[in-house]
Amino acid sequence: MNSSIRLAELLTRIADIGRDPTSGGYRRFAYTQEDAQLREFFAATASRLGLAVSVDAAYNQWAWWGDPDRDPAQNLVLGSHLDSVPSGGALDGPLGVLSALVAVESLLDQGFQPKAAIGIVNFSDEEGARFGVACLGSRVLTGETSSEQLAQLRDYDGVPFDEVIARAGVAPLGRDDQTLARIGRFVELHIEQGHQLIELGAPLGLASFIWPHGRWSTVITGVPNHAGTTRLAERDDPLCKAARFILELTDLAITHDAIATCGKVVVDPNAVNAIAAAVHLWVDARAADPGVLDRLAGDITELAVGYGAHLVNESLTPKTTFSSSLNAAIGSLLGHPPVISTGAGHDAGILASHGVPAAMLFVRNPTGVSHAPNEAATREDMGLGVEALITTVRGLTT
Amino acid sequence: MNSSIRLAELLTRIADIGRDPTSGGYRRFAYTQEDAQLREFFAATASRLGLAVSVDAAYNQWAWWGDPDRDPAQNLVLGSHLDSVPSGGALDGPLGVLSALVAVESLLDQGFQPKAAIGIVNFSDEEGARFGVACLGSRVLTGETSSEQLAQLRDYDGVPFDEVIARAGVAPLGRDDQTLARIGRFVELHIEQGHQLIELGAPLGLASFIWPHGRWSTVITGVPNHAGTTRLAERDDPLCKAARFILELTDLAITHDAIATCGKVVVDPNAVNAIAAAVHLWVDARAADPGVLDRLAGDITELAVGYGAHLVNESLTPKTTFSSSLNAAIGSLLGHPPVISTGAGHDAGILASHGVPAAMLFVRNPTGVSHAPNEAATREDMGLGVEALITTVRGLTT
Repeated sequence: MNSSIRLAELLTRIADIGRDPTSGGYRRFAYTQEDAQLREFFAATASRLGLAVSVDAAYNQWAWWGDPDRDPAQNLVLGSHLDSVPSGGALDGPLGVLSALVAVESLLDQGFQPKAAIGIVNFSDEEGARFGVACLGSRVLTGETSSEQLAQLRDYDGVPFDEVIARAGVAPLGRDDQTLARIGRFVELHIEQGHQLIELGAPLGLASFIWPHGRWSTVITGVPNHAGTTRLAERDDPLCKAARFILELTDLAITHDAIATCGKVVVDPNAVNAIAAAVHLWVDARAADPGVLDRLAGDITELAVGYGAHLVNESLTPKTTFSSSLNAAIGSLLGHPPVISTGAGHDAGILASHGVPAAMLFVRNPTGVSHAPNEAATREDMGLGVEALITTVRGLTT
Repeated sequence: MNSSIRLAELLTRIADIGRDPTSGGYRRFAYTQEDAQLREFFAATASRLGLAVSVDAAYNQWAWWGDPDRDPAQNLVLGSHLDSVPSGGALDGPLGVLSALVAVESLLDQGFQPKAAIGIVNFSDEEGARFGVACLGSRVLTGETSSEQLAQLRDYDGVPFDEVIARAGVAPLGRDDQTLARIGRFVELHIEQGHQLIELGAPLGLASFIWPHGRWSTVITGVPNHAGTTRLAERDDPLCKAARFILELTDLAITHDAIATCGKVVVDPNAVNAIAAAVHLWVDARAADPGVLDRLAGDITELAVGYGAHLVNESLTPKTTFSSSLNAAIGSLLGHPPVISTGAGHDAGILASHGVPAAMLFVRNPTGVSHAPNEAATREDMGLGVEALITTVRGLTT
């Protein structure tokens, strides 16, 4: 069967899981019913291919073709994640997992006999939508996030991490060196998040590096009061201060030729007829150059101080460079697709920063949009993505 | 017993109901467990005084001293409400209900024999914190809000009104002409929301009129996208637009010498690493003059249009003037306290606009703050408030 048709079939199989029929956006958060359905789908699909399915100590799902412990350094792992941001698109994550399943199915059909074990991974909680920490599955796997740090996390409803996973029937998580050692090489296929491949006129691209990026939060406070009886001149309205903060944040990012976003705001108490008491703001900032990001973060910290607020760093991911030898090998196999940098974090980046030779393959996105419902790829380009994985597996495990 | 000590005792009795121990603010929303506890307290306290307790068709609680149907036009009703805004203070509402209970208790102790029936009311859902409509109890009682309109309401969790009250074991609500006819005259004592009495150096004041006021909502949309991969120049970020809207809203209010507040904002999807898709904003606007409020609302509508948004009016309360004859009578009895206007809506205003002779007594508030935890009154001023109610009842029912 044609790879692109088979891929479309798998995408359709999960199309209704966690989909908001109005917006078309997905809510597929870690340790929810939707997450469980997606994991069941992954396990069932991989099992039907004859792969050995398992779950590691960080709750990531694995499917192996061949013995992963025979010559671990030679293993080749494909995959990505199945969870989404709130109101996310259908492809960010699933495209990488499903393309890997279709590529392996195709290779099995072709009677290909790899000289190394081939793995497919479905990383848990990549988007960080539930606990605010992105790439949690790969961070726990590698030990970058410890059990102690996990115990501090609370989800969007304030429920502690340990309670969330206990309710989902999941045992306490922890680093998993044995599983990590099995990832001889990792290739993550992903929808492009941006316009570079459109501008370059190329259906596929390889990743050079991930921009350093971080998340910060702050609370701007004011004096809560009655909305109908407090003169404007007597107000200390934190929402007006937060509005200025948001606009000045954008100006700072422009000054530094970097990116800063406020995408999350929580107003306390959020009543129509009360001047707010406080506004909680979250900031996402990124830059191609680590020095620029440092300076931008310093300026945002000062901006917050100007509002009597304290900027707290919630996560910081340094610049992550993908494996040049793996990129060179894949580049040769695929006829040298363009190599582009990306502002988005990925599990491939976490693995790369822990010494795993890792690479990423991007599939052109005609809307340039991601983390939103109208994220897209043509069936033809997605088919080329699967073919590229097949070529890569053949080239690297023959 | 001294009135101010007795009042303090009653305030203490309900001090823990719905109180957030961290902020000190109250969450006492209609049809919740807290609401049930407060209603139980009201019924028990009034019953112990020998008053006849009942609930009307709009779910307001009543306690009568004497037969309310003997000569209804002569009846004198005192009271206010026990619910709160989110993170509200201890006095907005409860001060009026508890002062009425203490005043009646004192008059009973003194062996006073009124020539008219005296009622105390605890209006349901005055703040509108649950369904977004303020003074719901008096609006339903007077028929200003119909059963059909109630059926359209949804609470903060999206639960339809009828389902909320069914869960609370409350029968369907509706207007109640018999109860309304019993309100011969109404006097609502309330903590002042503002600084006028402080500036005037007066412990008590009478209300002249309530500013016309309204609530509006709008949704500013943009293009949701990935926070890490979308260049600033390519963004259509609705949160940046909402920030500008909030600041321009304040400028418009200043221009009109009126008041406008944005106290409630909901960001969709509210994810740290995603440019938002839409921002829902609520606007509260008030002015002493109806023509000014009209013009301000027109300007806010145009402001929204400039952001491609549509401003929807959720409620509009016209200027409400309190009874001049009742004010004159109470003014004489109390030695002519200052008469002030107020920007805040009240059940007394709803009744006044339905032809009930109504008045309001304000108690000085040293912080000037309300709808927030640090709303305050001295024990002495609160005692003067109770004494004023006693004097008023004696003067108007002898």
